[in-house]
Amino acid sequence: MSRPAHRRPEYHKINKDLFVLTYGALVAQLCKDYEKDEDVNQYLDKMGYGIGTRLVEDFLARSCVGRCHSYSEITDIIAQVAFKMYLGITPSVTCNNSSRNEFSLILDKNPLVEFVEELPAGRSSLCYCNLLCGIIRGALEMVHLAADVTFLQDRLKGDSVTEIGITFLKKRDEKKYRRKK
Amino acid sequence: MSRPAHRRPEYHKINKDLFVLTYGALVAQLCKDYEKDEDVNQYLDKMGYGIGTRLVEDFLARSCVGRCHSYSEITDIIAQVAFKMYLGITPSVTCNNSSRNEFSLILDKNPLVEFVEELPAGRSSLCYCNLLCGIIRGALEMVHLAADVTFLQDRLKGDSVTEIGITFLKKRDEKKYRRKK
Repeated sequence: MSRPAHRRPEYHKINKDLFVLTYGALVAQLCKDYEKDEDVNQYLDKMGYGIGTRLVEDFLARSCVGRCHSYSEITDIIAQVAFKMYLGITPSVTCNNSSRNEFSLILDKNPLVEFVEELPAGRSSLCYCNLLCGIIRGALEMVHLAADVTFLQDRLKGDSVTEIGITFLKKRDEKKYRRKK
Repeated sequence: MSRPAHRRPEYHKINKDLFVLTYGALVAQLCKDYEKDEDVNQYLDKMGYGIGTRLVEDFLARSCVGRCHSYSEITDIIAQVAFKMYLGITPSVTCNNSSRNEFSLILDKNPLVEFVEELPAGRSSLCYCNLLCGIIRGALEMVHLAADVTFLQDRLKGDSVTEIGITFLKKRDEKKYRRKK
């Protein structure tokens, strides 16, 4: 992630509830359109991907983050800077393997489900917030980092926490990142 | 609109771009689902109505607005308090008839269309932001005010301004409002 040439003077914010309810309307519409949860999940991920590819430039400009030298550092920035900036929360980060390319973001709070008590009836495989995975995947792709991003646990499904897994895929870039450690 | 018993301590905000892009994804999905612009418009209005009925309680709690004594006062609160709170903009208000039940909100800036340069091809009758009309209608309904809310002008359609028309419909309540003027 390169340092931006400028920083936007304004840091535009809007009321969260309007976003959360609008997101709920989007998920409801997709559930109406697609019978299978897997299709809804895939569509949310695809939409998120498109949003991520557009948000990343804005993120780099506003956050002024410098170049990252490890997957760990990148994941910390996603958790501490991006989540904070866009959703007002800071997930905790764990590294899940010795190769240090698999990480988890643990969300204590998830604003997107604030008005959702449980998954809709017959929708037990729905990843309600899958847009987030797509956004992270799309944003990473734009800085030449391929990653798998999926929900590993979800409070809406009865898990004790909500956990997003990020697996950075081995690429040519990796050597460069390793060398710079 | 009655004075709330409490005020929430926090005023939750999130980044606007995330909302604007997610809203764009919602409209795109509806355009995919419904061939006719009128159907998309109607669906956005319906979704907005649902959102408005849920947002209004939160709005009353946070804004601490007192009881309004005229349609004009209500419209001013929508423009100066609600739009400011939820979208960060303050439309100007005009009254359009001598009965003082028809008003316009004139939006100089419209954050919802920030990433939209023009309407999608073949979608010239699309009211891209019709969710807003539904939200206003739903919120008013919850405080026992029936209203027609529609876009009268739209910059996305080549108009010089974006204008939302609110027509308060005559109801039994009207007498009460009149008496208190």
